[in-house]
Amino acid sequence: MKDIKVGLIGFGTVGAGVVKLLSENAALIQQKLGAPLTLKTIADLDVVTDRGVVVPPGVLTTNVNELFDDPEIAIVIELIGGYEPARSFVLKAINAGKHVVTANKALLAVHGQEIFAAAAAKGVEVLFEPAVGGGIPVLSAIRGNLGANRFSTVLGILNGTCNYILTRMTEEGAEFASVLATAQELGYAEADPTFDVEGIDTAHKLCLLVSLCFGTRVKLEEVHAEGISSLSPVDITFAKEFGYKIKLLAIGKCDGQRFEARVHPTMIPLNSPLADVDGVFNAIRLAGDFVGPVMFIGRGAGMNPTASAVVGELMDISRNIHAGISRRTSPLGYPDASVTTLPLKPMGEISSKYYLRFSVVDRPKVLSRIAGVLGDNGISIESMIQTARSAQESVSIVIKSHEAREADVRAALVQIDALEFITEKTNLIRIEDNLE
Amino acid sequence: MKDIKVGLIGFGTVGAGVVKLLSENAALIQQKLGAPLTLKTIADLDVVTDRGVVVPPGVLTTNVNELFDDPEIAIVIELIGGYEPARSFVLKAINAGKHVVTANKALLAVHGQEIFAAAAAKGVEVLFEPAVGGGIPVLSAIRGNLGANRFSTVLGILNGTCNYILTRMTEEGAEFASVLATAQELGYAEADPTFDVEGIDTAHKLCLLVSLCFGTRVKLEEVHAEGISSLSPVDITFAKEFGYKIKLLAIGKCDGQRFEARVHPTMIPLNSPLADVDGVFNAIRLAGDFVGPVMFIGRGAGMNPTASAVVGELMDISRNIHAGISRRTSPLGYPDASVTTLPLKPMGEISSKYYLRFSVVDRPKVLSRIAGVLGDNGISIESMIQTARSAQESVSIVIKSHEAREADVRAALVQIDALEFITEKTNLIRIEDNLE
Repeated sequence: MKDIKVGLIGFGTVGAGVVKLLSENAALIQQKLGAPLTLKTIADLDVVTDRGVVVPPGVLTTNVNELFDDPEIAIVIELIGGYEPARSFVLKAINAGKHVVTANKALLAVHGQEIFAAAAAKGVEVLFEPAVGGGIPVLSAIRGNLGANRFSTVLGILNGTCNYILTRMTEEGAEFASVLATAQELGYAEADPTFDVEGIDTAHKLCLLVSLCFGTRVKLEEVHAEGISSLSPVDITFAKEFGYKIKLLAIGKCDGQRFEARVHPTMIPLNSPLADVDGVFNAIRLAGDFVGPVMFIGRGAGMNPTASAVVGELMDISRNIHAGISRRTSPLGYPDASVTTLPLKPMGEISSKYYLRFSVVDRPKVLSRIAGVLGDNGISIESMIQTARSAQESVSIVIKSHEAREADVRAALVQIDALEFITEKTNLIRIEDNLE
Repeated sequence: MKDIKVGLIGFGTVGAGVVKLLSENAALIQQKLGAPLTLKTIADLDVVTDRGVVVPPGVLTTNVNELFDDPEIAIVIELIGGYEPARSFVLKAINAGKHVVTANKALLAVHGQEIFAAAAAKGVEVLFEPAVGGGIPVLSAIRGNLGANRFSTVLGILNGTCNYILTRMTEEGAEFASVLATAQELGYAEADPTFDVEGIDTAHKLCLLVSLCFGTRVKLEEVHAEGISSLSPVDITFAKEFGYKIKLLAIGKCDGQRFEARVHPTMIPLNSPLADVDGVFNAIRLAGDFVGPVMFIGRGAGMNPTASAVVGELMDISRNIHAGISRRTSPLGYPDASVTTLPLKPMGEISSKYYLRFSVVDRPKVLSRIAGVLGDNGISIESMIQTARSAQESVSIVIKSHEAREADVRAALVQIDALEFITEKTNLIRIEDNLE
């Protein structure tokens, strides 16, 4: 077996983790592969800052082309993130005949089709387990041992920043803004947290999960993405009274004809294992026609867990190189030619249970008028909580609906929010109940 | 790509699931593999009973040798369970150059070394994802994307019968015997439940997990196996007061020098995701040096989930056949030659927190004498509950210890149980606390 040489683009936190892992567990990896896996070159614009890991002399370069031009390098790891220059670098690596491992969900969610086509044309691999769920080996499982299933659902807590913020809001009854500020101080949230807290990062990851689970292409711009910035502690409290916890969920569903792909705050049962996934942990729950529900939980980001997924992919490709083969499976588990473009179900047509919080002036018949409008729109009420009466302030009427069509609910809310006793826009949170 | 033909030995519940899956999802499987996967022959002593699935004419046979002698059959699935004739059939299949997929944990836990050696000599695969955790793809993950990690711990809820019984005991405060009887009526427990409730089935599965995680051979007879038959509802109640739930856990640990492999009722924190794994669900929690903790939850048995794992392995082997290779990885993830035999840590040397329930006559100084003996043996107390006083009956003193050596705890209990005010043998349950 021959020594396999690897090049790394992007020497940030995860890059340093990969250096550390390949060094600390070199003997284990060599034992398993039968040959060493060696990091030959690291390209980064900054080759000066100390990343806290030992890099042998001659490994660091500011010239990324050294990787593409080096015939010894068989695999290129892309860890710079974002669209460009990541896209160009990945395509250059592929065109130079290198296999690629990337943690870049944004890149694959938007330019995946172009990259996968280029890789197919050159007969090289593009693997991306580290792009979803950090160290959790969920993509490998979908492409691998779960591959005989038709999946109906994939749900995920995929963003550690949001989950950390929601966990603290839930535990402390704190406001979003104050928890975000603390998270930023602790380094759990970026200075500009938009990508994370508005659900965009989660939507990127959902695109990949949906493609793997349902064998369909997904347009990122069609994915409904709502974040957590408008969540209020009062909703978290009411959720608990109904027996729920609020999580930012990525939800993919498929009935074989059309699929759903949406990201939004979601109430899930307090006693479901998913509800206990707190802090920076991620979780993915799949439902397959034969396996039934299966769930994966682990650290969704960070230096070491993500490095575990990167090196796992390096080992997978190395086994192929040693066996003299390539692309034993295709990047999405489905042969590229058979990946379809199923239609995405519009949000108005999805069906869900709903939590609706109405802010009303406390006067007689308010509830009956709200219930009347809901009923007129075909929405039936499963349970209701009304807060203590108050002549001065507006009070809350909180309703949990039975399964209803989103378009009907939205139509009802337009009518209700126009009623004279409504003091604020009604708050809607979707409920996922069936998570045994 | 050529059509791959499969033979099945054992047409029971899981076998029927495999027939159903290969039939219902034939198009999906062909789409992913690029060629059909066809069940050509099913061997069973009973070819008459209706299993509720359609079998084409000419597929069923009572003569198992038809499978071994058929050059068209590339993969043999063994689903008869037990040691013999399963062992002979698997060895015959291997010697006939067939790849093998088996769900037989008992066979591999006891005869794994012989079977893996035979497979290595013939250059064929032996895959066994269905043997542990039903449809949960945990073995594939350990051999695959998590492969760069050194694992320190593997914990599992691996027996659905025990978990169902414990869940009902916990929810209803019921006695073991009465819940077992109901479980037997419902078909969740065998007429002779010994293998399940005494932890032996769990120990079989632990042997496989330990071998994959730590790269070591394990002797089944050295694994400490305690079942759930002596658990009492009162311990479940006290567990809850301490913030714990009782689960039958398989526990493997490794410090690189020695390993632990033990099965026993264990208290785990109520708010850990593992504690919410109820009923017939299974879960496996790994801790790797880079990935950190990662957990898998799913249906641990049954026709469809286990069939999912069987066919997942068939697809894995099919991909190798199509690529013209074999044994891209070895059965245990480590090359057979590098699997070692680490020493097993004797139970007396393990370290754990302990729940100790003392049954005592209620009189002065009882607690101080118990605490004194514990202290003399180096065991310190973290918290304590004493039940309501009663002059007539014996009362319980329940103690949660800090981390202690098992041998010290046992020595202390021998001394304490000899004290004149002790009315019953002291009950000991180990605690696993650190399961974030």
